[in-house]
Amino acid sequence: MTGRRGAEGEEDEGAQGTVVTPSAEFPPLGPEELPSLRRIGEQWRTPPAATSSAELPVDPTLRRLDGRTAPSRFGRLAPIEMFRTDEPGELVATEHAYVPGSRFGRALSRLRRVLFGPPLRSTAVLYERMRKLVALPVLSSDLLSSIAYGPEAMLGVLLLAGSGALSLSLPLAALLVTLMIAVGTSYRQTIRAYPHGAGSYIVASDNLGSGPGLAAAAGLMMDYVLTVAVSVSAGIAAITSAMPALTTFAVPLGLLVIGVLLAGNLRGVRVAGNIFVLPTYAFLVAVIAVLLAGYAHAAGRGFAPVPPPPTAAAEALGLLLVLRAFSSGAVSMTGIEAVSNAVPAFRRTEWRNARTTLTWMVSMLVVLFVGLIVLIHLSGLVPVPEQTLLSQLARQSFPSGPWYGLIQASTALILLLAANTAFNDFPRLLFFMARDGHAPRRFLHMGDRLAFNDGLATLALAAGLIFVAFRGHTQSLIPLYAVGVFLAFTLSQGGMVVHWRRRRGRGWRRRAVLNGVGAVLSGLVLITAAFAKFTEGAWVVVIAVPLLILLFRAIQRHYRTLHRSLALQASPDGAGAGTAVAPAPLPGATEPGAAAEAQELPQQVRHLVVVPVARLNRASLRALAYAASLGQPTLAVHIAPEDAESDRFREQWQAWGNHVRLETIVSPYRAVIGPLAHYLEALHASRPDVLLTVVVPEVVVRRRRHQLLHSRTGQRLRRALRALPGVVVTNLPVHLGE
Amino acid sequence: MTGRRGAEGEEDEGAQGTVVTPSAEFPPLGPEELPSLRRIGEQWRTPPAATSSAELPVDPTLRRLDGRTAPSRFGRLAPIEMFRTDEPGELVATEHAYVPGSRFGRALSRLRRVLFGPPLRSTAVLYERMRKLVALPVLSSDLLSSIAYGPEAMLGVLLLAGSGALSLSLPLAALLVTLMIAVGTSYRQTIRAYPHGAGSYIVASDNLGSGPGLAAAAGLMMDYVLTVAVSVSAGIAAITSAMPALTTFAVPLGLLVIGVLLAGNLRGVRVAGNIFVLPTYAFLVAVIAVLLAGYAHAAGRGFAPVPPPPTAAAEALGLLLVLRAFSSGAVSMTGIEAVSNAVPAFRRTEWRNARTTLTWMVSMLVVLFVGLIVLIHLSGLVPVPEQTLLSQLARQSFPSGPWYGLIQASTALILLLAANTAFNDFPRLLFFMARDGHAPRRFLHMGDRLAFNDGLATLALAAGLIFVAFRGHTQSLIPLYAVGVFLAFTLSQGGMVVHWRRRRGRGWRRRAVLNGVGAVLSGLVLITAAFAKFTEGAWVVVIAVPLLILLFRAIQRHYRTLHRSLALQASPDGAGAGTAVAPAPLPGATEPGAAAEAQELPQQVRHLVVVPVARLNRASLRALAYAASLGQPTLAVHIAPEDAESDRFREQWQAWGNHVRLETIVSPYRAVIGPLAHYLEALHASRPDVLLTVVVPEVVVRRRRHQLLHSRTGQRLRRALRALPGVVVTNLPVHLGE
Repeated sequence: MTGRRGAEGEEDEGAQGTVVTPSAEFPPLGPEELPSLRRIGEQWRTPPAATSSAELPVDPTLRRLDGRTAPSRFGRLAPIEMFRTDEPGELVATEHAYVPGSRFGRALSRLRRVLFGPPLRSTAVLYERMRKLVALPVLSSDLLSSIAYGPEAMLGVLLLAGSGALSLSLPLAALLVTLMIAVGTSYRQTIRAYPHGAGSYIVASDNLGSGPGLAAAAGLMMDYVLTVAVSVSAGIAAITSAMPALTTFAVPLGLLVIGVLLAGNLRGVRVAGNIFVLPTYAFLVAVIAVLLAGYAHAAGRGFAPVPPPPTAAAEALGLLLVLRAFSSGAVSMTGIEAVSNAVPAFRRTEWRNARTTLTWMVSMLVVLFVGLIVLIHLSGLVPVPEQTLLSQLARQSFPSGPWYGLIQASTALILLLAANTAFNDFPRLLFFMARDGHAPRRFLHMGDRLAFNDGLATLALAAGLIFVAFRGHTQSLIPLYAVGVFLAFTLSQGGMVVHWRRRRGRGWRRRAVLNGVGAVLSGLVLITAAFAKFTEGAWVVVIAVPLLILLFRAIQRHYRTLHRSLALQASPDGAGAGTAVAPAPLPGATEPGAAAEAQELPQQVRHLVVVPVARLNRASLRALAYAASLGQPTLAVHIAPEDAESDRFREQWQAWGNHVRLETIVSPYRAVIGPLAHYLEALHASRPDVLLTVVVPEVVVRRRRHQLLHSRTGQRLRRALRALPGVVVTNLPVHLGE
Repeated sequence: MTGRRGAEGEEDEGAQGTVVTPSAEFPPLGPEELPSLRRIGEQWRTPPAATSSAELPVDPTLRRLDGRTAPSRFGRLAPIEMFRTDEPGELVATEHAYVPGSRFGRALSRLRRVLFGPPLRSTAVLYERMRKLVALPVLSSDLLSSIAYGPEAMLGVLLLAGSGALSLSLPLAALLVTLMIAVGTSYRQTIRAYPHGAGSYIVASDNLGSGPGLAAAAGLMMDYVLTVAVSVSAGIAAITSAMPALTTFAVPLGLLVIGVLLAGNLRGVRVAGNIFVLPTYAFLVAVIAVLLAGYAHAAGRGFAPVPPPPTAAAEALGLLLVLRAFSSGAVSMTGIEAVSNAVPAFRRTEWRNARTTLTWMVSMLVVLFVGLIVLIHLSGLVPVPEQTLLSQLARQSFPSGPWYGLIQASTALILLLAANTAFNDFPRLLFFMARDGHAPRRFLHMGDRLAFNDGLATLALAAGLIFVAFRGHTQSLIPLYAVGVFLAFTLSQGGMVVHWRRRRGRGWRRRAVLNGVGAVLSGLVLITAAFAKFTEGAWVVVIAVPLLILLFRAIQRHYRTLHRSLALQASPDGAGAGTAVAPAPLPGATEPGAAAEAQELPQQVRHLVVVPVARLNRASLRALAYAASLGQPTLAVHIAPEDAESDRFREQWQAWGNHVRLETIVSPYRAVIGPLAHYLEALHASRPDVLLTVVVPEVVVRRRRHQLLHSRTGQRLRRALRALPGVVVTNLPVHLGE
């Protein structure tokens, strides 16, 4: 685990590993913070009126209201109960408390509800457990769907060297099968070692440190984005193969699909395993049917290969081309890591069932992959732009009738589900990263449908951009795909090697060797893909991954500073004395401004309330009354454009009774904000231990367009004063009748 | 004067009429407001610490600082004096107090200073007085420059009916001369009646009421915008006539000229009369030279007219065409009103000198106009797209040598100055309108160069848009021009008729008749222009003027409401009792929320300080300390996503010591802002007389990009609470070290 997570209170890391909870936004106090909190509490002296035992002017439990909790603006007709009391001292908001106040907000909220459904309670987070026969389709859709584009990607590269080079597909397939088995075996061990589930990010962070962990995360993020882009483009290709008329609409269709996936996931549809069962098994059956029919046909002619249509070589058949073909074919393995993330979703004994499922999945992958490659070789088919190879095979075996359509539909459907897998996993990855402080905190927040809205939107946006940039062309996307995936594989397996070496449990050497083989093979594919396809698009990933790592690190640095600044620590001033005394005024303090913000006990705070007054009207008199009623020293400031105006204002002030000390500042260049901000800063510099509270009345108009008729002095002042330490800005709203 | 101006304290309306002062942003109290202020002051009871006599923790005059007024953030190396003390109790900001705090702001400020020069003090407003010989060129550039496009506009329309119709130019010219003399005479009387100067807006508002006043203002605004557009396009035409290669760049060139005019006026160059003298007299000399040479030439052939080149008629010669030609020719009179606006700028006796100058101007206009029309007739010239008529005449008389170039240059220059006149007058018109509440208040504000930046920018933007929309084509702009100008003329002269009728001074009938003739003739031109040229562009103005009037009225309505809401009136609650008592709690008040905002005396304000706490850290503890130190009843609120989190938080609260009453609200749908806002509203509804102060700590980061990593809870809460009456939001900044 990285430092950040440790600092905010470490629980059992394994159990915490894959649990997604809405409370993650509110991390518990760190172990050294609780004693500090107690010490701070002991030094705290609250004025009588503010203490918890004092009588409040209102009943905070709202019980005195007897159901009249509905303010006029919202429930005009019937009283609506916005808050219930379940336990004493604890209110629970009802759905009504979420309805926005403005009319526009309410309309938006209604629209959201229609689109995405009613809000879901935090308690509705489901922790589903799956049988193996359900887990298999759920977790394998990503992996198995890869054979819809993987073999084609490999043959497409070989074809560049002419149709003669196509026969190389058989040895390459053998190599890939070895790779599949090695990586599969490797992941079987990860499952055993991380029975609570662990993605590449967690395994790599845990064992190799934060750098490799972030590299794995960056690779995974690229992987998820490309899974969506590639699966959608391959799915669209399956459809356009069947209906060529739709080819011109491929890009908008793809964007529509991404939009539907986003909307569905924003709806937070808990994609129950059942949804996956039918399409995945249908796809399996369809591909097996195609294989059987194809081999029956081939058997009819004694398995004599049909020569492929002669194609001229565009490139020479060199090592580079073969490596490119190999790394393209390797994308057939994407999705193999799914099971290791989801171990806790299995029934007991989880790791055992997960391992068995993984074995089944890899076996099926090998069978389908080899079956397809050999059948394509026997049938003499070559990749063509208008139709996928799978569609060509299906057409050959089932030239007419509903069978062909069913095969294409099940292909499109499983690819859609594969894309949906990324929509499940990407926000979870961001959640874990945000929990460690590597990603913006907002990714911890679950929307009102228990979905990670920000993460989903980020994925859809990134995938949509890439999809459009590559015009939804699967073969152009493949070079980008392999690098991220194999980066994650390599780091994950490499992490396992370190894991075994550290634990030195029974048979650790054997296990380390198995994972080591997986890591080395994955690493070789990674290097092959990065180099051989660099100019074809892999450079995007090669550049993006380090940049992402830098970004994650910068984010973490910022959150670390934030945490250090905000972590509780007993104030050094009051540490000794029970009755803490405010620090003496330090006009020549080395750090002006620090003093006022170091006041963390009520008895340390020294107030000065400042009221900027432009002219005497009800708004400014309300601000003065508010300021004076706080019972703290008060100063009014008037900025005048000319001497004459300043004198006139002073006369009015005298007529009013000069109840508050007034200082006028002539601003000969007429600006108001600048001199006022500098004056406040000068005041603060003269007594850094005094906290200035600036009371700004702000006219609130009903109609937005009327805002144009008002100077935004309040807002501008707030912005100018934000940077000043020890200056508090209080906005006093003045509501206009109209 | 309209009601608004009266309400804010009426001064001598004549003297106030044309005085532009930076203090206009701070209108004095109304006559009934001062007694109210006194009464409010008598009822006011300030707690001892807040009174003006109490010792403040700082010295508001900054004297104790001894020159160390430079806070660390700004003058790091040398102490900079930001404020001087001229009189006791009054500080004066020095230039340093205007330097923005942020680095970006400082860079921008330096750039502004380079572009527009150092700031000018309010006392630098100049009230220049001009000799007649200087006033003449200053005030006549707009009028005289009109002959550069007026005659051509008229002949261009006549030519549509074939070259035979061109001879109609002579009778039309005679008609226009009558009009010029009538309108000139009419304005002579306005000058006598309004010796402090008065534009059409003021004369029409004064005598005909606010509606016609606004109509005149709308007409004038269109006039100023079109003066810029037409003068710039005609100026560019003068240049492209001499250098045809530049024709393709006409539109960007024109925009460049508008940009330069804007920049020059933002610089606030006091366009001293001297700048105008040379170009105006040069233009006069140039045109007279062209005329003399032309007539000498014509005399050589016994004043026999050269027949114009035969041109086929595109339209029948009907009444409509003649009327169109007449109203096009009438644009030669634009600018005739300039003297009546500027009477106070003359030396004594102002009105007499102004009247004499007007007479000279009109005489010159008549001479030049008639001279040109007749000479064109004699020379047989017709308008052509590539070259202006003035350029053709100049080429005829001075075919080569520097003379032709000088003539074109002086034409372009005077047109530029004419456009500049609009840049002087448009922001002044907006200033007067804003003073009456008909235009946004921001137009009262003078920038740091004493220029009305917002008005200048508005004019440049509008003129630029129109210029581009008509592709800088003078003849297309003319139909729009006449309507606005003659609307203002008509209303101004009509107003004078009413003026004389009301006063019934010596010889009022004669004066009324003279102005009446001017009004009727101007009105006829207005109607002619609006109808005859409706489809050619006049419809834009015919639609825009009523829309502008509606806009002005809506603005005034809003400001009236604002003024009524904010005007001082002794509080009815405290009126009787010397020691005012807070209104009794009214849980069932008919107007919930009104109570808290009606509290205008310190002794009436009942506080409840509410601190939303998400988690216990230094920021939230500072907010709690701040809230508690105010010594008012305090309540902390925690919004929890789940029961478990709520319980955990309560435990921490107990560990701290439970110093402040805590209420937790479980938000099962995880949103924070909505339930919090509704809870505060419910609290407020339970005791409408209690003012809620919500203290929100806000983490302030140094770098803007880090802001992305923080939830903007403070901002979102502020926005959600803005609409709630009686809820004050206090932002407590927490500055991060990094």
